[in-house]
Amino acid sequence: MIDYSSRISYRSQSLRPSEIREILSLTEGKNIISLAGGLPGPEVFPKQQLADIAKRVLEDLGEEALQYSPTLGVTPFRNAIMSFASSKGIKVNEDDRVAVTTGSQEAIYLIGLSLIDPGDNIIVEAPTYLAALNAFRFFGANFISIPLDEDGMKVEMIENEIKKGIESGKKIKAIYTVATSHNPTGVIMNDERRKHLIEIANKYDLLIIEDDPYGFFVFDTDKRFTSLKTLDTEGRVIYMGTFSKILAPGLRLGYMIAPRQFTRTVELGKQIVDLHSSTLSQFIAMYAIKEGVVDETIENARKVYRKKRDVLIEALEEYMPKGSEWYKPKGGLFAFVYLPKGVDTTEMLPTAINKGVAYVPGRNFFADGSGGNAMRINFSYPSIDKLREGIKIIGETAKEMMK
Amino acid sequence: MIDYSSRISYRSQSLRPSEIREILSLTEGKNIISLAGGLPGPEVFPKQQLADIAKRVLEDLGEEALQYSPTLGVTPFRNAIMSFASSKGIKVNEDDRVAVTTGSQEAIYLIGLSLIDPGDNIIVEAPTYLAALNAFRFFGANFISIPLDEDGMKVEMIENEIKKGIESGKKIKAIYTVATSHNPTGVIMNDERRKHLIEIANKYDLLIIEDDPYGFFVFDTDKRFTSLKTLDTEGRVIYMGTFSKILAPGLRLGYMIAPRQFTRTVELGKQIVDLHSSTLSQFIAMYAIKEGVVDETIENARKVYRKKRDVLIEALEEYMPKGSEWYKPKGGLFAFVYLPKGVDTTEMLPTAINKGVAYVPGRNFFADGSGGNAMRINFSYPSIDKLREGIKIIGETAKEMMK
Repeated sequence: MIDYSSRISYRSQSLRPSEIREILSLTEGKNIISLAGGLPGPEVFPKQQLADIAKRVLEDLGEEALQYSPTLGVTPFRNAIMSFASSKGIKVNEDDRVAVTTGSQEAIYLIGLSLIDPGDNIIVEAPTYLAALNAFRFFGANFISIPLDEDGMKVEMIENEIKKGIESGKKIKAIYTVATSHNPTGVIMNDERRKHLIEIANKYDLLIIEDDPYGFFVFDTDKRFTSLKTLDTEGRVIYMGTFSKILAPGLRLGYMIAPRQFTRTVELGKQIVDLHSSTLSQFIAMYAIKEGVVDETIENARKVYRKKRDVLIEALEEYMPKGSEWYKPKGGLFAFVYLPKGVDTTEMLPTAINKGVAYVPGRNFFADGSGGNAMRINFSYPSIDKLREGIKIIGETAKEMMK
Repeated sequence: MIDYSSRISYRSQSLRPSEIREILSLTEGKNIISLAGGLPGPEVFPKQQLADIAKRVLEDLGEEALQYSPTLGVTPFRNAIMSFASSKGIKVNEDDRVAVTTGSQEAIYLIGLSLIDPGDNIIVEAPTYLAALNAFRFFGANFISIPLDEDGMKVEMIENEIKKGIESGKKIKAIYTVATSHNPTGVIMNDERRKHLIEIANKYDLLIIEDDPYGFFVFDTDKRFTSLKTLDTEGRVIYMGTFSKILAPGLRLGYMIAPRQFTRTVELGKQIVDLHSSTLSQFIAMYAIKEGVVDETIENARKVYRKKRDVLIEALEEYMPKGSEWYKPKGGLFAFVYLPKGVDTTEMLPTAINKGVAYVPGRNFFADGSGGNAMRINFSYPSIDKLREGIKIIGETAKEMMK
């Protein structure tokens, strides 16, 4: 049999496996507590409602739901997303269009494809969502990392970094941010910083990519955090949402809302990537929006995840070695835990998996390779008992590593 | 509002709209007979069976079917595809793996991503499937076009082209072929040529990309055409299939079967492109395979499409201007019609659409820009009456153009 290694494109030789996916495949089918993925808790899926909806969609609209559909999405579904987003306070401009994508991963990928030339710089939080780093990197992006604190990205540091970048000849294209319920830290950018971020984008003519999978999962306040899309007055914000956390990831539906000029480019890219996303999924999600199933799921998941967050914090306080640090997540599905300096969470992972628990090493979330003593812990997926047990094992493993 | 044109990547500036998608969007919602797409006839969709299956999947396996799933596909579904393909005479080697994709468009895209470096040459039929040309072109492919006749690609011409290519310093990576029920012509490569093609691939160390969406739709014979995958003894064939024609395109499921070394690269690409394909769709298709719904759909569709093919041929004979030529499709969903020389089908299209019928101009299917007087006509989607009426209008329009 022939060897393929000499036939693989240079482009794909640079691809590195997603550490999350690799860890998930290590744990698949084994009795391991996974705190690694970003999976919704299965108890929040509206199973029976979706079973009924799926049947009705196919009986009522089978010919359409089973057929090919437009590249940017089924028109009534795109309209439903538009209304849904507006009703949640996301400002939609007259010139904006919705592009439905195969999960928000594809939205990130198509944004990369549409925007990034090799050597372009993207400003990101440090840490930030590793799958965005990987996708943007594939198109040749470099990154300018901005630290964050409990109020989100330290926006006051950006301008200086931009000036330095420009001086050294860097082309800076966009700022990528998970402003609300940040992945991996769970912090929320405050309104003042959001306004400042918009000012900076205007001043330096940058785009903002607002990745908002967790905007609905804010735990301790009813205060509204204004979407960057809403604050924007110049059409600079490409807003991304997903049905993975507010309905079900198995439908594989994400979306972006952006100026028509941009979604047109995205459309041309999507034509060659996958032509369109599942028509059936789109009709199911449309019914789920209209029948209130999405809103119910959000409310339910918010309660479930807040409770789990509280359990996590208790467990972290009880079991983690002295000197460990974390932000108490204000929202989202994750906490980011720093172990005492010197503990390497990548080295520690095989031992942790052997003892029955998986997490994602922190280094993956930094464009600059820092975060060696950090780890991302997911609290939405495991049961409360497993979550507590998982943290206990991690704490014990870390303490042994420190001996 | 800011202008995006200066921000678009060079890569995406080279993207041209798929003419099929553009024509489909022109006809959407209008009373136009579309012979342009590659859409299954809606009457062949097993609507009620899929409605029942969808409900059962979500009731029985909701937690799994609504959750994230592995990048290469849900394991039992991948196994079901393996068995399904084997049962249809596709040889699956021990080292082969299935990769589930978001329609076979994504399979084509990921093959391009995994294999093609700028300047690499792919040998293709002339004409060939235009979406493959577009996707491979995106990665910088050049093409070597080989004419075909009613027995498929003129394989005896390939070796000479390879020698010329090598002499002029071309790097040739693979042969892309729709060997059975070819798109757009409906011809079928005979077994002798298939064997010769494998010999050539072996001799010149090339891969073969066997795109097989229409292998089940062969109309006039029960003779088996041996899959190139089955003839291959060196692991050179990347086999692609799809559920779009044998179940429903709205599920958005394609697949490839290829050596593990290659699907591993595809997996890394798919991780950044869309993480995985719809989990729900995968479980629905798995049930449909196991419960015989796929086999029933194939049998039914084959009969329906044969009947429509016969109607098409009658109508072509009746209405097309003298001097028009076509292969009688032996299988598949399309006929490729050459009008008398001098008629430009691209120029003719707006008039045809005005008169109420759409087709795809032939030039799109040639890597070398020929085919200006040809057109692809789909016969699977329209009703028999609309099909006849559509051909009548095209014939009249062509005759007017010739005046």
